[in-house]
Order: sequence, then structure tokens, then C-alpha cells
Amino acid sequence: MLSPLLSSSIKYYLCFMQTVIIGSGNVAYHLAKAFVLNRIPLAQIFGRNENELSKISGELNIPYSTETLQKADLYIICVSDHSVEDVSGTITTKDCLVAHTSGSLPKEILKGDYRKASFYPLQTFSKSKALDYSKIPFFIEAENEEDRKILFEIASKISDNVMESTHEKRKYIHLTAVFACNFVNHLFARAKEISDLQVIPFDYFLPLIDETVQKIHEIDPKSAQTGPAVRNDTRVLQLHEQLLQGESLEIYKTMNLSIKKMYQLP
Amino acid sequence: MLSPLLSSSIKYYLCFMQTVIIGSGNVAYHLAKAFVLNRIPLAQIFGRNENELSKISGELNIPYSTETLQKADLYIICVSDHSVEDVSGTITTKDCLVAHTSGSLPKEILKGDYRKASFYPLQTFSKSKALDYSKIPFFIEAENEEDRKILFEIASKISDNVMESTHEKRKYIHLTAVFACNFVNHLFARAKEISDLQVIPFDYFLPLIDETVQKIHEIDPKSAQTGPAVRNDTRVLQLHEQLLQGESLEIYKTMNLSIKKMYQLP
Repeated sequence: MLSPLLSSSIKYYLCFMQTVIIGSGNVAYHLAKAFVLNRIPLAQIFGRNENELSKISGELNIPYSTETLQKADLYIICVSDHSVEDVSGTITTKDCLVAHTSGSLPKEILKGDYRKASFYPLQTFSKSKALDYSKIPFFIEAENEEDRKILFEIASKISDNVMESTHEKRKYIHLTAVFACNFVNHLFARAKEISDLQVIPFDYFLPLIDETVQKIHEIDPKSAQTGPAVRNDTRVLQLHEQLLQGESLEIYKTMNLSIKKMYQLP
Repeated sequence: MLSPLLSSSIKYYLCFMQTVIIGSGNVAYHLAKAFVLNRIPLAQIFGRNENELSKISGELNIPYSTETLQKADLYIICVSDHSVEDVSGTITTKDCLVAHTSGSLPKEILKGDYRKASFYPLQTFSKSKALDYSKIPFFIEAENEEDRKILFEIASKISDNVMESTHEKRKYIHLTAVFACNFVNHLFARAKEISDLQVIPFDYFLPLIDETVQKIHEIDPKSAQTGPAVRNDTRVLQLHEQLLQGESLEIYKTMNLSIKKMYQLP
């Protein structure tokens, strides 16, 4: 716990803090928007893609640059994992805090003579899709209590759901998210491929999909499992395999095998 | 199109029609409940499981029997696919309509000297989870226009979304549903297994999961894909493979391969 004096001085500090977001992709855009909507001042949005930056800058009324990174107290790096290290090396300010937003990188990937941190929002971001930022869990890691408190204060202005997390834990959070979000979306894409081929509107499946997700708000997903594999319905499983080919057939077999294993079916 | 006279006579007929639901599982329970809520009379609910039948009967105030199948105009068979044929053979009434609720069986599986039909609700049913029946798509197939109209009228009292469907099309609807519902739920179960092992509350992932599904109401799932595979982020993919084992590792590899193929990545 911070002392009340330190805590109130951090709140005071935040009013004057200069923050820069680096990046122009989905995460950079939504984080910048979340800052603006919650009246957290942004000094600059910096990146390489002038076209994207000027769009974000225009919409959110934040200065941008592709050339001169402004001196700041906090830099939040929102670029692809493989660019985080290089981008972090371009920050020459010393007395500052730098956080990346990656689920899978340690804060030590950041290369520079500054304080390092992780500021990980657990959500899937698309520019074209509005979001309720207050529900996004933020996972924070920093080198010291003051920096942790600064990032907590900022994230708490955006979201009701802010937690500390080590890199070790964050790796598993990210991995879980890949199953629960990225792979789930890919199943929707493969499902739509099947229904499109048969000229069945994919909209027919939306109530079923909504219910599938609604269910796990109330029931453990293991208890909610339905379908031919958990019923061990060999006839349907064989029929379906005849209707499929390529990658969808591979997914079909792998998922059914995994379902059978989970429920210890023969 | 039915003539207006036939159409109005069918509506009149429905007022006096005797309907029996056969089965005591999730589909039987929810279909019976949907009938009762929409004031469609049910003469009986019939099955083998006295315990379940008496619970449904008590809740919905419908007579039940495990011994004597009542004479009726319409029987709706709500039992597991592998039991449909046997159960249908026990119906000895001749001048009646019998419909099954299976997504994968042809109506010809029904064995008896009566008119045959399919009455397929596209939804995932659990007894413990309430449902908005008005959103459930119903797919209807019958031998003649009158029977089709009867089933359409009934389904339309329950849902805003009633369509005709051949067996051929229904097979693909069911297959699509397995990907979009059963497999999606299994991914949630495997995701929860990973987060449970790390003592990370699965609730953290619900906003992400909700957003993943909200997105495909607005964006084609193929365009909405995010994550390490579609970014071709080899470092993260390798890291994640080291964290996984068993069935989850197999799913991880299969899904990533399929994502890469869909987006023609190396």
C-alpha cells in the first residue's frame, strides 16, 4: 500500500503528466480513444503510418508526428510484438516510464535507460467496432510501487477491472485469450464458410452463438457441452466427416477427439 | 401458397388439435415450455424417465405418462438421434403427423404408417438455462402443403424465424452449428482449463468473449480475425506451444494451421 501522502501526490502528478502513445493500429487507436473519453490528457500519438495517425489525430484531436517523438513522462507502446523492442530503443528520454501493451512480452524487452512496465488490456480491438472500455480488464506490472500506482490510476480511470500481473501470469492470460477469442472467431469463420457454400444465411446462427456465450456466464463450459461428440453419436460424427474436407475436416476431428478425451469417452 | 380457405381452416384445426411431445430431455423440456408459454395446447408429454417427466409435468402443468402414449394428431419426437427410429415405431396411430427434432436425420427415418415431418429448432438447450424462444430459428420439412402449414403455424406462434428446409440443407445447418456452438463451447472449456491451472479467474475473459461474439454481428468473422496466427507471429506461436500439452496443444496447432491456410500465410 502507498502512503496516503504518496497516493495523493500521484493523483496530483497525473494532472500534469505528459503521456505519448506510440503506434497507429487497433490497440493504439482504442487506447487513445479511451484516454480522451476519460479526460486523461495525451500529449502526442507517434508512429510511422501518417495516414492512420492523421485519421486518429483528426477524430480524437490529439497532436501526432511520424518524425519527432515528444519528450514525455509516460510512453505507452502499442505496436506489434515483434516491433516492441526496436521501437522502445528509439525513446531517448531517461527520466520516464515506458510501458508496452503486449500479452506475451516481459517488460525487460524494453531497451532503454528508463523505468519499464507492462500495461496489458485484455480485449480484441478492431478500429471499426466501438467498445465499452469500462469492462476491459487491465493487467499492470512495473518496477516499483510508484510506477505501479501511476499505471493503476490511469487504467482505473478507463476500467473498473484493473489488476497486477507478473509476466509469467500474463503469458497464460494471453494464451487463454487465444483459445477464447482468436480460435473462437476462427471457428465462426470456418462455420460461415460451410453455410455460405450451402447458401444458408449466417445470420440464422447468431441466436445460437449468442446463447452459447450467454450460457457460460451462468454455467461452467464443461457442464454446458452439447453436440454429437459429447453424446458419443458415432453416426452423426461419421456423417459430418463425409461432408467436410481440408482444414475444416482437420478441425472437426481434433475438436471431437479433444471433447471425447475431456469426458473420458471411448 | 395455401388458399385462404385452407389457411383459415388450418388455424381453426389447430385450436382442437391434440399434440404430444415424446421425450424428457433438454429439447423436450424447452419445446414443451415454449408451447405452454405461447398457449399452444399440449395433450401429453410421454417418455421413459419418470423422474424428469414428473418434474416437467409439475412445472408446466401437462399430463405425462411413461406407459400409455395418448392418441393424438401430432407427435413431436424429442429424443436422441439414435433413439428416434425406435421411438417412432411405437406410434400406432395412423391418421396423424409425426415430426422429429433432429438436425441430422431425414424424416424418412420415422417408421410408421403416418405422415412424416421434421421440426428442427436451431438452438442449444440446457434445462437450467432460460431461453428467449422467439429468436430460435425453426426449420420445417413435411410431406405435403397442409402438414407444412400446420407446423409453420405452430412454430410461428413460438418464433419470428420459421423456414422450410430439406434434409440435405438441414445436415449442413447442423454441421455449421457444431462448429459455431459445440466446438466454440469446447474452446471455452479448454481455455478455462488453462486459466484454472494458473489460478486466473475465468470471469476475466468474459468481456473479451462477449466482444468476440458482438463483433461478428457487425463484421464478417474472416475480417475480424486477430491473434498471433493471423499476424504470423512465430515467436508467440512457439512460446505458446511450449506452455501447452495434450489435447490443448493439438487444438492449438490445428487451429493455427487452419488460420494460416485461410489467410494464405506461409
